[in-house]
Amino acid sequence: MPEQNKERYEDSLLYRVRHSCAHIMAQAVLEMFPDGKVAIGPAIEDGFYYDFDLPRSLTPEDLQVIEKRMRSIIQGKHPFVRSVVSADEARQIFKNQPYKLELIDGLEQGGFDEDGNPIDEKPEISLYKDDAFVDLCRGPHVEHTGQINPQAVKLMNVAGAYWRGDEKRPMLQRIYGTAWLTPAELEAYLWRLEEAKKRDHRRLGKELGLFYFSEDIGPGLPLFSPKGEMLRHLMESYVRDLQTSYGYTHVFTGHVVKEDLYRRSGHYDNYKDAMFPPMVDDNIVFRLKPMNCPSHMTLYNEMGLHSYRELPLRFAEFATLYRYEKTGELNGLTRVRSLTQDDCHTFCTEDQIESEFLRSLNLIREVLNRYKFSDYRVRLSLRGKGGKYVEDDEKWAKAEDALRRAMDSAGLEYFEATGEAAFYGPKADFLAKDVLGRDWQLSTIQVDFIQPARLGCTYVGEDGQEHVPVVLHRAVTGTTERFLGVIIEHFAGAFPVWLSPVQAVLIPIADRHVAYCRKVQEELQAAGLRVELDERPERMNAKIRDAQKQKVPYMLVVGDQEQENHQVALRLRSGENPGPMALEAFIERARRDVAEGN
Amino acid sequence: MPEQNKERYEDSLLYRVRHSCAHIMAQAVLEMFPDGKVAIGPAIEDGFYYDFDLPRSLTPEDLQVIEKRMRSIIQGKHPFVRSVVSADEARQIFKNQPYKLELIDGLEQGGFDEDGNPIDEKPEISLYKDDAFVDLCRGPHVEHTGQINPQAVKLMNVAGAYWRGDEKRPMLQRIYGTAWLTPAELEAYLWRLEEAKKRDHRRLGKELGLFYFSEDIGPGLPLFSPKGEMLRHLMESYVRDLQTSYGYTHVFTGHVVKEDLYRRSGHYDNYKDAMFPPMVDDNIVFRLKPMNCPSHMTLYNEMGLHSYRELPLRFAEFATLYRYEKTGELNGLTRVRSLTQDDCHTFCTEDQIESEFLRSLNLIREVLNRYKFSDYRVRLSLRGKGGKYVEDDEKWAKAEDALRRAMDSAGLEYFEATGEAAFYGPKADFLAKDVLGRDWQLSTIQVDFIQPARLGCTYVGEDGQEHVPVVLHRAVTGTTERFLGVIIEHFAGAFPVWLSPVQAVLIPIADRHVAYCRKVQEELQAAGLRVELDERPERMNAKIRDAQKQKVPYMLVVGDQEQENHQVALRLRSGENPGPMALEAFIERARRDVAEGN
Repeated sequence: MPEQNKERYEDSLLYRVRHSCAHIMAQAVLEMFPDGKVAIGPAIEDGFYYDFDLPRSLTPEDLQVIEKRMRSIIQGKHPFVRSVVSADEARQIFKNQPYKLELIDGLEQGGFDEDGNPIDEKPEISLYKDDAFVDLCRGPHVEHTGQINPQAVKLMNVAGAYWRGDEKRPMLQRIYGTAWLTPAELEAYLWRLEEAKKRDHRRLGKELGLFYFSEDIGPGLPLFSPKGEMLRHLMESYVRDLQTSYGYTHVFTGHVVKEDLYRRSGHYDNYKDAMFPPMVDDNIVFRLKPMNCPSHMTLYNEMGLHSYRELPLRFAEFATLYRYEKTGELNGLTRVRSLTQDDCHTFCTEDQIESEFLRSLNLIREVLNRYKFSDYRVRLSLRGKGGKYVEDDEKWAKAEDALRRAMDSAGLEYFEATGEAAFYGPKADFLAKDVLGRDWQLSTIQVDFIQPARLGCTYVGEDGQEHVPVVLHRAVTGTTERFLGVIIEHFAGAFPVWLSPVQAVLIPIADRHVAYCRKVQEELQAAGLRVELDERPERMNAKIRDAQKQKVPYMLVVGDQEQENHQVALRLRSGENPGPMALEAFIERARRDVAEGN
Repeated sequence: MPEQNKERYEDSLLYRVRHSCAHIMAQAVLEMFPDGKVAIGPAIEDGFYYDFDLPRSLTPEDLQVIEKRMRSIIQGKHPFVRSVVSADEARQIFKNQPYKLELIDGLEQGGFDEDGNPIDEKPEISLYKDDAFVDLCRGPHVEHTGQINPQAVKLMNVAGAYWRGDEKRPMLQRIYGTAWLTPAELEAYLWRLEEAKKRDHRRLGKELGLFYFSEDIGPGLPLFSPKGEMLRHLMESYVRDLQTSYGYTHVFTGHVVKEDLYRRSGHYDNYKDAMFPPMVDDNIVFRLKPMNCPSHMTLYNEMGLHSYRELPLRFAEFATLYRYEKTGELNGLTRVRSLTQDDCHTFCTEDQIESEFLRSLNLIREVLNRYKFSDYRVRLSLRGKGGKYVEDDEKWAKAEDALRRAMDSAGLEYFEATGEAAFYGPKADFLAKDVLGRDWQLSTIQVDFIQPARLGCTYVGEDGQEHVPVVLHRAVTGTTERFLGVIIEHFAGAFPVWLSPVQAVLIPIADRHVAYCRKVQEELQAAGLRVELDERPERMNAKIRDAQKQKVPYMLVVGDQEQENHQVALRLRSGENPGPMALEAFIERARRDVAEGN
C-alpha cells in the first residue's frame, strides 16, 4: 500500500528542533568568537551541524562551554521570527559574513538554496531570527526555543569540512550536535552510537583481518585478505547460485570501455564527475566502467538479431565497477571507489515488466531473509522536476504503473519519493533496517525505457517488426563491498556458520593430539567445512580466547578422551559449551546450522 | 633431465632452408619490381617471410609467378657466399635501399641486428650473396640452393606489416612462405593448417556464441555471453577448488593501483609500454593493474608483521589484468588486452623454494591432465646478458639451482633457454602440445628474489631477525581468455562434459511431450546438470542438427515411449545413438562422464 501520508522528516517537530538547535549553536559560537564567520547549518539525520570559519581550532572544552550557553539560550523561550528581504537588504545584514554573501548571490541567480544545494528556481530570500541571531534560512523552525528540551541536546564533535564540499575552497570547522524530544531518546541514541562504534566494520575488519587500505594502492581501493576474499566468494557464490535457480544467466564484460559509449548512453553527461580520469591514447579514450548497463546492451547487440521468443534475457554480472568518489567522502567499505555490484539487466517486452519485476522482488526478499534483514521498506523513486529526466510522459507513466502493480500484487509496503528516480526511469529501492535500527539502502530494481533505444537494442516481435526492449536494472545486495561492511556491523563480525570464513578451529590440548587433529581436519574438510588447526605453542585457554575473538563459530578441543573415542569437545563463540560429541554428530550439527542459516 | 644438447631450431637445416628461401623470394620479387625496396626477411616458425615496399599491391597471381621463379632459382644450385664489409662499404652496396641503410646505421651503433631486433653489442656487418641477390644478413644459410627441395616450398599469403612493427612507420607488404625438407612434410603442414582453420577459436567462438568483440567497447576487450561466461566460471572454479585443496588461499586486490607502486617495484621501467595509458588526477596517477605481484606484496605488508611460522603464505587471485598490446598484435582470445590470470604468489623462505616449486608443479600437471594436454615440455628460462636483469650473481645461482633440483626430483623433462628469464629471477614455463602438435606456453612458475626486497616485504625468522621472503609467481592455465582460446581449438569446440556450458538438450518430438520434458529438466538440474529444453516449433531432426552444431554432449529425445517409461532417448554429438534409457541410468552415465573428464 502506498504510504503517501507518512510524515516526512522535514515536516516533523524533531526536524524543526534540530534545525533550530543549529541556529542556537551558531549564536553561542559567535558570542565566543565575535569575528567568526558562519557558513551553513542544516538539520541532518539524528541531529544537526553548523560550519564555521574561526580564528582558532575548537577544543572539547569549547564544546562544553557552547553546549552550556545553548541550554541557557533555549531556556529563554525566544520566538523564531521569519521575514522576507530583498537580496540587497540581505547583503547589508550579512555584510561581514562572506559565506552568506556568496549564498545570497546564489539565491539571486537561482543557483543554490540556503544549504548550498543547487536548485533551478529562484527562491524568496527569507531570514529567521531568534534571540540575538539572524540567519539566512528557508526554515522551518520551532515556534520558540521553549519547544526544545535542553536536556535532550548534546554537541558531539568537530570535524573539518570544505566550504561547499569543494576541496579547493576553504576548510571550515563543522560542529556536529544531536537533539531529541526527550532525554530518554537522547540516551537511547547515545547507546546505539556506542554499540555502532563497537560494531564499526572498519575496526572489526582490522581485528578479524578481513580487508586493508593501503597508501601504496590508493584511497578507497580495498585489498581483501584470504579471509576477506572467502567472505566475498561465499557472498557472491550464494547470490550467483540463487540467481541461476531463478533463471538468470551470467555474463562477463570486463572493466574498460571506450568513452564514446558513455556519451551515447547518456552516462557521460549525467555521470562524468563520478568516473575515474580518462585513459587517453592518440586515437582513443578509455574509461573504467562505472556501470554495466552500456556493456550489457552492447553484448546484447553483438549477439545478433534477437526474437521475442528469446525474451526475457537476463544478464547478471559480478563486475567490479570504479567510481571516483571524493576522498573526503570515502568511508571504510561502505563508500569505496571499487565496488562489485551483483548487477543484472533483464531485456524484456513491456508486457513482461511486471512479472520480471516480481521475479526480482522474490529473489531479493529471499536474499535479505538469508542475511537476517527481516525489517525492510521499499522506496518507489519517481521523476522530479529538472533537466536530468528524459522527457517522455507516456513511458514514465507506463513504467511507474507497472512497478506499482507489481508491488501491490507482491503485497509489499512501499512509499513514494519524488525526484529520486534515475535519469532513465523510475526505480524501487529496498531500505533494510539492521539490528541497530539503521536504514541501509541495499537492493534496487529500475525500469529503463531510454538507454536500450539510445544504444540501438532491438528484438523482432511476433508481428515481424523490430521493437526496442525494456531493460530492468537490478542489484540484489547492492555491492559486495558495501554489503560486507553492512553485515559486519549487522552481525558484529559473528557471521552465520555458512558465511564464516573459518567455521571451526581445532585446538589440541597437547602435542600428542596434533596427529589426530590433522586427521579430523581432513575428515571435516572432506565434509565441506572450513577448518583450521591451531598448532601454536600456546595454552589451550589462550587458543580458545583467540578463536572467540576471531568469532569462529565452533571451537573443537581435543584431548585424550576425544582422541580415544573419535570425538571433539565443542565450544561455541557465544561461550556455550555443548562438550564432547562424536565427530559425526558434530558434522551433523554443523550441516544443520549451515542449512538453517544459523 | 636437462636437454642442453637438443638441437636448437636456429642451428637446424630446416631453419637454413627457410632463411635461404626468404632471400630467394626477395630476388624473385626484385626481378618483378626492379625499383622495389626490401626490408627484412627472417625464417620463422614453419616458414619465412620478407617485407617489401613496392609500387603496387601484390595479387594472388603475383605470388604464383614469384613461386615459379623461386623454383627455377633453386634449381640453379647457387652457392650462398658470406662476406664481411665495413659500414661504409655496406652503405655503398645498399645505396638505393633505405631500409637496409637504416639497419646499417643500427648495426654501426650496436642498436639492432639484421632482423631489426635490439641488441647490445656491436656486431660484424656480414653479407650473403646467392645468384643475383645480395643481402645484409647474419646467416646461417644452406651451402647452395640445391639443398632446398623446390616441391617443398610454397608461398602462403601477403599481409601488411609496419616497418619495425611501429604504427608510425611505413606499412610494408609482407609475403609469408613455408618450406620443408620434403613434399610430404609440406602436405602434412598444409593439412594441419586446414584443420587449424576449422578449429579456429575466433570462428568457433562465434558459431557457438561464446564471446564477442565490439567496436563500441574497444579492441582486444572481449565480451562473454552466458555460455562463454559459464565456460570461464567452470574453468576458474575448477582451478580455484583444486588450489584450495593444494593449500592455496585466495585474495582480492582489484584492478587499479597508484603508478608510484610500479616505479618502486621496477615494473614501470621494464613494463611501461605494456600498460594502459595513465589516469591522471591533480595529485595522483593511477594505472590499470598489468600484474598482481606488487598488489599481493602490498597486501602482505598491510596484514602486519609476519612470522616464519606463517610461511609459506600462498595468495592466489583470478584478477583481470590489463595490458596495452598493439592493436596489430591482437588475435582473438589468444592475444587480448584484458586477461584474467590464475595467478598465485607464494611468500616463503629460501629453504621452502624447492618444496613450493614442487607443489606448483604437481598442481599444474594435474590441471594439464584434466584438460587432456598429455604432451608437454618445460623450458627453464635463465638470465641472459643485458641490462634488464637485476645483478646479484649469488641469488640467481641459488634460485636456478633450486629450480633444477625441483624439476629433477619431479622427474620432469626440461630444456634451458638463456635470456628468457623475467627481470627479477629465473622461471620455468610449460609448453603443452595441442592435438595439432602446436606448442602453447601455458603454465609458468617464477622465482623472485628482487621485488619483495624492493617493496619492503619481511618476516621475522626463527632467529628473531627480519628477513626478506622469496616470492614464487605461478600461473596454472596462464590466463582464462588465452587458455579458453587454446582449448576451443584443442577440443574443436566439443568440450568435455564437465566443461560444456550446456550439457544436454531436451528435444520433445511433439508438443504433447513438452510438459514431461520440463519435469525431466527439473530433475536433471536438481542432479546438477546444465540442461536446456528446445521448445522451438522446429522438426526433431532440425533440433538434433542444431544441438550437434552447438557441440552439446547429450541430446535427449523424448516421445511417447520415453514419456510412458520415465526414459530419455540418448544421442551423442559424435553421432552415436545409445537410444532409450531410464532417466536414472542417464544421470548415472552423465555423472561418470563428468567425473572421468570425458
